[in-house]
This record gives sequence, structure tokens and C-alpha cells, in this order.
Amino acid sequence: MKTYTEYLYFTTRDHREYIRITDKVEEIVKQSGVNEGMVLVSAMHITAGVYVNDAEEGLISDIDGWLDSLTPYGAYPKVKWPKEGASGPVEAQSIPYAHHRTGEDNGDSHLKSILVHHQVVLPITEGRLDLGPWQQVYYAEFDGKRRKRVVVKVMGE
Amino acid sequence: MKTYTEYLYFTTRDHREYIRITDKVEEIVKQSGVNEGMVLVSAMHITAGVYVNDAEEGLISDIDGWLDSLTPYGAYPKVKWPKEGASGPVEAQSIPYAHHRTGEDNGDSHLKSILVHHQVVLPITEGRLDLGPWQQVYYAEFDGKRRKRVVVKVMGE
Amino acid sequence: MKTYTEYLYFTTRDHREYIRITDKVEEIVKQSGVNEGMVLVSAMHITAGVYVNDAEEGLISDIDGWLDSLTPYGAYPKVKWPKEGASGPVEAQSIPYAHHRTGEDNGDSHLKSILVHHQVVLPITEGRLDLGPWQQVYYAEFDGKRRKRVVVKVMGE
Repeated sequence: MKTYTEYLYFTTRDHREYIRITDKVEEIVKQSGVNEGMVLVSAMHITAGVYVNDAEEGLISDIDGWLDSLTPYGAYPKVKWPKEGASGPVEAQSIPYAHHRTGEDNGDSHLKSILVHHQVVLPITEGRLDLGPWQQVYYAEFDGKRRKRVVVKVMGE
Repeated sequence: MKTYTEYLYFTTRDHREYIRITDKVEEIVKQSGVNEGMVLVSAMHITAGVYVNDAEEGLISDIDGWLDSLTPYGAYPKVKWPKEGASGPVEAQSIPYAHHRTGEDNGDSHLKSILVHHQVVLPITEGRLDLGPWQQVYYAEFDGKRRKRVVVKVMGE
Repeated sequence: MKTYTEYLYFTTRDHREYIRITDKVEEIVKQSGVNEGMVLVSAMHITAGVYVNDAEEGLISDIDGWLDSLTPYGAYPKVKWPKEGASGPVEAQSIPYAHHRTGEDNGDSHLKSILVHHQVVLPITEGRLDLGPWQQVYYAEFDGKRRKRVVVKVMGE
């Protein structure tokens, strides 16, 4: 059995950013010498995500806009849905993140990390990432402009 | 150390469909000869998910309806929540998916894949999937009626 | 190659509860004797989650409040977003969970489990959990007051 570990570092220019890292992970797998196994790609921060999806700029802007509706900056929605079984207009109260009492302003970034998930496990078959034709690995930065880290751990033989 | 890899194929009749695959994964684990280890079950497409939950038809229709509210077809909601600290009615703008400029119409399927997550890792103990009594593995198709694939990779000893 | 398996048990006092389990997982890793590898931490129930995020009480209350807006108790929202491209008020219908026809009342707990995800895989490097400085492992109970279980499976060398 072999294991092999590397770390990727990111300091984004924007507060939120989506960075394709498939090639870097593939390179690490090659260096590991593992032919059959798995590689864990996992953000080491709690305001970032790692996901697998399409390398298409339009979709990335959709993901970003959609995420920001569900986990808005500054305050999260306490939604008053209609009564069980009923229809009607939706009301909400915007609750300032309790987390911000610590002096932080990134409550939304934590929720985005939980929603997207902070890690993926990729299969390695015949020495290569065993991905579908459209699958690309992304680092999703939700609170950027500072140095952050992703661990890439290969395991197999 | 042993590894063992198989692929499952699905061509659903419906656009969205939820297919229980626990028995197929269990069968692959048996064939692998692995007694202690893990099995990765991962969609190879970016408009599908794999999750663990209940084999109960009511719940499956709840999951489907709920997902479609959060990630609607055609356009995603840019929600205007009340101002921080305030209460009131919720307004939204429905933004046509930028992804659709490519000619696709499955922006919502990509978001559903991210929300549900596209993979699970299942423990193998004494040669069997080590699942709780109600845990069932599901393939969630979010853009079906065409041939799609799931990789099942067993690793252990 | 080594594997090592233990189970954690929880009977919460509250219906929903968030319990930090990092130290217990670290202890299991130590007992396993694995220096390089991975540990799977996975809920064995379909109304619970396992996630990695901040050990900060404010954030935990934010997570709980936010989750309950997106996956409300009793009924899930069928949202009528404005027509594609349009803006306006949001309406919704609250659909009683079909799952409740079975006699259960925990449809929302199942959705919370899917949203948060029920498992994480943690890297082990030099005999320790290889986590970032703020990363803590949490068991998220979404339907508590009864005995529930998490499997912790270590694999490596």
C-alpha cells in the first residue's frame, strides 16, 4: 500500500472564486505512483468547498448566484412559509448571523461550505483519475483574498 | 491490499428518477473479496447524485419536490431577502441560467447534483456494507433518458 | 494495510443537536495505529449528518436556523418563483411531507441529512488527523432523543 500527500495553496483576488484544479490533482496522482486507489481532495478551511462539476463559465456564475440566494451575506433568512397545506405569499425575517458577534463577517461563507461540501474522493484506475468526460474538480473559495489550503491525499497501490 | 472496480449503467425513462442500488453495490463488494475497507460509489456525470437515505416512496417524492423548489428548472432565483434585521415579504428575480447559452437546458440538474452531492463512501466490515438498518444507497438522476454511469471502487483487504 | 472500526453512540436531550466529536475521532485514530491513511466518519441513520466546520456557538445557531428555513418541519415548500426573467413577490404552497403518511413526522430531518451530508473522510498524516486550524468534526442530530450511531472506520498503514 502506498500513500502520498500534497497541499495546494490559494490566495484569490476575489472574495468568491471558483478554481479548476483537476490537472493539479492528476499531477499529484501521477507523482504518487498509485495505479489503483482513491484520492481525497479536501479544503482545510471552513469557508471553502471542493466539488466536481462542469468547467463552463456560465454554469459557474449560476452556481455563485444561486448559492448567494440560499446563503446571503450579512444575515440568513428565517422564512415564514405558509401554514401546512396552505398557499400564499412568503415572508421572511433576515437574522444577522450570530457568528458575527465574534467580529467575523463571513457567516454566509460557512453556510456555503456546508451546502457545497468541503471535499470529494476521486477514484484512481490504471494510474489516472477515473472521471466522466465532463467532470472537473473545483476549489470553491467563499472568503478569499488570503492564503488557504487544500490537502490532497492519495492512497492505493 | 485489494482494489476492485465496476461500473453501473442507467438509462432512465423519466427526466428525474431515484434508483435504489444498495444490492448492486453489496454484490460488487462480495465479488471484490474485501472483508475490511471502503467502497466509493460516485456518479460520473455532473447532473446526477448518489446519496444514502430511506427507501420510502413518500420521502422520495418529498425529496424531489423540495429539490425542485430550491433549484428550479429554466431559471434560478435571485432572492431579495428583507434588509438585515428586518421582516417582510420576499421578492425574487428569476435569472435564466447563463449555462443555457451553451444550448443546454439542464442548469437546474447541475445545481441538484451539487446540493445532493455526487458520491458516498460506504464502510465494509466483515465482508458486508456496514450500513444502519434504514440506510439505502440511491442513484439520483437529474437529467435522464440517456445512458449514464456510476463508478463503484472497492478498496481494502 | 491496517483497518480499525469503532462506533460512537449518541442519545441527545434535544430534538436537534450539534456535538463536536473531533477528539473522539482523533482518539480512535491513535488506537488504530495508522500513521498514513484516511478515516471515514459516517452517520448510520438517515436523519443525522456529519460535517466539518467551526466550533463556535453563534455559527451553530446560524446553521440550525438556516437549515430549518430551507427544510421546515411538517411540510416542505413548493415555491412559485417569478416567471423566467421576471421579478416579483414569491409565493409558495406548503406541502405536507408524503413521508408522514407512514406515521413518521420527521420528513424535514431526512432533508436536513441530505443537505448537510451524512459523512466526511478525514486525512491522517503522521498519526494525526490532518485538519486545518479551525476544522472541527460535528455530529448533527436532526431527530434525536433516541440512541443513534456513527461508524468510524480507519484505513491506512
